[in-house]
Amino acid sequence: MSTDQDQAPDQATTAHEAAPAAEDVPRPTPEPEGPDAVAAATANIGVVGLAVMGSNLARNLASREGNTVAVFNRSRSKTDELLATHPEANFVSAFSYEEFAASLTTPRTAVIMVKAGKATDAVIDALVNVFEPGDIIVDGGNALFTDTIRREKAVRETGINFVGMGVSGGEEGALLGPSLMPGGSDESWITLGPILRSIAAVAEGEPCVTHVGHDGAGHFVKMVHNGIEYADMQLIAEAYDLIRRGTGKSPAEIADVFAEWNRGELESYLIEITAEVLRQVDAATGKPLVDVIVDQAGAKGTGAWTVQTALSLGVPVSGIAEATFARSLSSHPEQRAISRSLPGAEEDLEVEDVDAFIEDVRLALYASKIVAYSQGFDEIRAGAAEYGWNIDLGAIAKIWRGGCIIRAQFLNRITEAYAEAPDLAVLLTAPYFVDALGRAQGAWRRIVSTSANAGIPAPAFSSSLAYYDGLRAERLPAALIQGQRDFFGAHTYKRIDKDGTFHTLWSGDRTEIEAEDTH
Amino acid sequence: MSTDQDQAPDQATTAHEAAPAAEDVPRPTPEPEGPDAVAAATANIGVVGLAVMGSNLARNLASREGNTVAVFNRSRSKTDELLATHPEANFVSAFSYEEFAASLTTPRTAVIMVKAGKATDAVIDALVNVFEPGDIIVDGGNALFTDTIRREKAVRETGINFVGMGVSGGEEGALLGPSLMPGGSDESWITLGPILRSIAAVAEGEPCVTHVGHDGAGHFVKMVHNGIEYADMQLIAEAYDLIRRGTGKSPAEIADVFAEWNRGELESYLIEITAEVLRQVDAATGKPLVDVIVDQAGAKGTGAWTVQTALSLGVPVSGIAEATFARSLSSHPEQRAISRSLPGAEEDLEVEDVDAFIEDVRLALYASKIVAYSQGFDEIRAGAAEYGWNIDLGAIAKIWRGGCIIRAQFLNRITEAYAEAPDLAVLLTAPYFVDALGRAQGAWRRIVSTSANAGIPAPAFSSSLAYYDGLRAERLPAALIQGQRDFFGAHTYKRIDKDGTFHTLWSGDRTEIEAEDTH
Repeated sequence: MSTDQDQAPDQATTAHEAAPAAEDVPRPTPEPEGPDAVAAATANIGVVGLAVMGSNLARNLASREGNTVAVFNRSRSKTDELLATHPEANFVSAFSYEEFAASLTTPRTAVIMVKAGKATDAVIDALVNVFEPGDIIVDGGNALFTDTIRREKAVRETGINFVGMGVSGGEEGALLGPSLMPGGSDESWITLGPILRSIAAVAEGEPCVTHVGHDGAGHFVKMVHNGIEYADMQLIAEAYDLIRRGTGKSPAEIADVFAEWNRGELESYLIEITAEVLRQVDAATGKPLVDVIVDQAGAKGTGAWTVQTALSLGVPVSGIAEATFARSLSSHPEQRAISRSLPGAEEDLEVEDVDAFIEDVRLALYASKIVAYSQGFDEIRAGAAEYGWNIDLGAIAKIWRGGCIIRAQFLNRITEAYAEAPDLAVLLTAPYFVDALGRAQGAWRRIVSTSANAGIPAPAFSSSLAYYDGLRAERLPAALIQGQRDFFGAHTYKRIDKDGTFHTLWSGDRTEIEAEDTH
Repeated sequence: MSTDQDQAPDQATTAHEAAPAAEDVPRPTPEPEGPDAVAAATANIGVVGLAVMGSNLARNLASREGNTVAVFNRSRSKTDELLATHPEANFVSAFSYEEFAASLTTPRTAVIMVKAGKATDAVIDALVNVFEPGDIIVDGGNALFTDTIRREKAVRETGINFVGMGVSGGEEGALLGPSLMPGGSDESWITLGPILRSIAAVAEGEPCVTHVGHDGAGHFVKMVHNGIEYADMQLIAEAYDLIRRGTGKSPAEIADVFAEWNRGELESYLIEITAEVLRQVDAATGKPLVDVIVDQAGAKGTGAWTVQTALSLGVPVSGIAEATFARSLSSHPEQRAISRSLPGAEEDLEVEDVDAFIEDVRLALYASKIVAYSQGFDEIRAGAAEYGWNIDLGAIAKIWRGGCIIRAQFLNRITEAYAEAPDLAVLLTAPYFVDALGRAQGAWRRIVSTSANAGIPAPAFSSSLAYYDGLRAERLPAALIQGQRDFFGAHTYKRIDKDGTFHTLWSGDRTEIEAEDTH
């Protein structure tokens, strides 16, 4: 049981009931030594917050050679329980912030694993009180990157390093090897690098961690990871729906299709677990579990953050947006109830060549997935430019190959694309993807067309195709929009044949004048 | 020349060069009387900020019986110029905030028409210093509604009323009759109502103004108005592009098509001006102007605000989002340059029956437009619920029938729909729209299908259709997404056959347990 994508923006752990609540957070205690006070600094890393995510991360750290791990939790019982159940970890326990600080060798390094929001702020304040310049505070929760930027700036003034770190892979990842996306200063990375490399997931021999960039870069990249995950899941859902409604295959039969796909270029964790979910039979009814589950998708906000941020950056992440909207649409049962009788397509979809249709769906899924990742990396590129982060996009694809929900073979192709052209302005124009899109596009067009004609909603498939066709268009009707804007708002326009900014006197004699650039 | 939609979030006027800059804003001056000091309070309304929007609004106010208008601007020259060029208005001029306040009868009522942002805050502060409890300060700029909520709260503590008011229709509307969307207190509306009714646009005998709701409600509704406008413009652009590429008609010929459409159910200001823009010939080249304009659409942020707010509210406004993204996609020339060689559709679109195709496009446009407005009203409904505003949705449609960019016959149908069912959960389920969608949907499906097959981007057409089909779906594959989320994150799911929240032990024996609801 783990949270990852969909991890609540306001919580860093699944077992939130165990995480310190905002109003009930550990504070420096007056007594310097408790009954278990440590005699000397022996731990090279500490963890604050011992709910499931924090405990698992602490156990992961303790299992690696060279680490001695200090642990601290607001309520003593959590700490005692962890020590009792995992004596092999040789944890150094602390029962006050002073003890915790005293147990750490310098530079003191602590990872906070508590609820995002006020609880995190409170722990940071408490650690700042007991840490010294040069020490390192790591926030491993799912913070919004702008909060991380704010916190880094505030903590930096004390001389202490603050690192916002995206942790992906949920509880299992935390224990066995997560994908880690630390931001923060170069100085902090000197100490953190070896420790994080020791606990991260390993993909093709390489640890899934890199120093993403300064201040909020790590949490930014983690946010986009989750947004891409929304898109990937929605695309898989649309593929399933089309096959089900188009061929009448049962969920178990479609599980076989996904299992087969998982042996090809779509190979990924999400495709793999889709087969598992579709194969699951509900014990109570004997029906496929997927037919027993209420069809209202929940969301915890990171998809929305990704799209909101992209809108501020001017990056079209339509696939992620459609995925986020599809979830919210599904979750309004009262609206859906009164809409079920709306007029639909005249004919149900009846696929003749089932195998050919399924192959078309597979290719449409692959092409749309390329678009979703391309849009996500476009957002990272734009975010790096906006916030001054020096992000190695190929390295990001690399560290997502293991430990996280979107882990996939596919990511190697992205790393290769950026290795070949580090400044690639659109990921999907890399030769490998151009080739894949060329192979897929006929099928992709057929599937979008089929879904429109059959009345089967495929918002992410169709928006990805529209994005693709928009990107490659020789001319876009955006020129008409500029004309409209100039007509009603004197917003001016540029000309293709000369420099300058122009305005037509629409309510005058309709001659053109040079104008100030007002966009 | 006017700004409306696309009015910069950070500016309330087109002629921003004339508006007071943030660092250079009028402040209370020490001398109580200037050479033109007024002897007594004679004006019932005042305007601060005499750039084009402010001047025009002041002239509009002065032209209505019963109004005497005080005017004030940071730089005296603007005031002098206005008085000199419009003696018929009998303006009462003021050259300090004290004079301005002294010139107003109580309750003093002033409309601020300066740049949104810091300039607005500075003018508010200055007015608060010279006004008294019961007086009314109106912000007529394009403020973000959350700023308006903040300001209203702060000003209210002084006993002064603060009203955030959306003003649509640009400079011409300000002069001749805008669509007005005031928020603020009920008390303020007693004084403001008659004044605003006197200057608003008139549609079918009714002034285009209503008291939208408290605090930020007016600016919220204005924001959604602009978002709908983005969608409407994008849909028109896609219709034009399809006709152009599908039939080879010239822009002038397509202008005739739009002019014809403007006599039917699509009748609207935007369709009307589209015909005008398409008919325009560039004098320098003899080409259609639309072919000379650079095809990169600008945006000033209100579309993005609308989508960002909808994401926070959990409202799927996919049509507005696709329109906003289409503009940002168009505005990345470097990305488009390297994408033009991407593989495209195998065959160009060759329409055989041109008239039938154009009618299909018209119906697709109409159906997609219904979706866009339905999504926009859904956002207003959700915003009202979230912020506790009592918004009459039918009245909003009414006040958009005149003065603003999205004015259209069509809005009467929306007013009627809400008159019949004030709590309608989805606008497009009103009988009139169900009928229209039933007539249109075959054509709509053909057009989305055609655009996908031909490689012509139609993101707003296709996303609107996908939304429609999603809304009316009996079952959505969101159930699979819930299964995936439960698999990798223990996010739990609901069952269709019993209450409670459930989790399958995916990494255990795969039995189902009742679980805490963690979404």
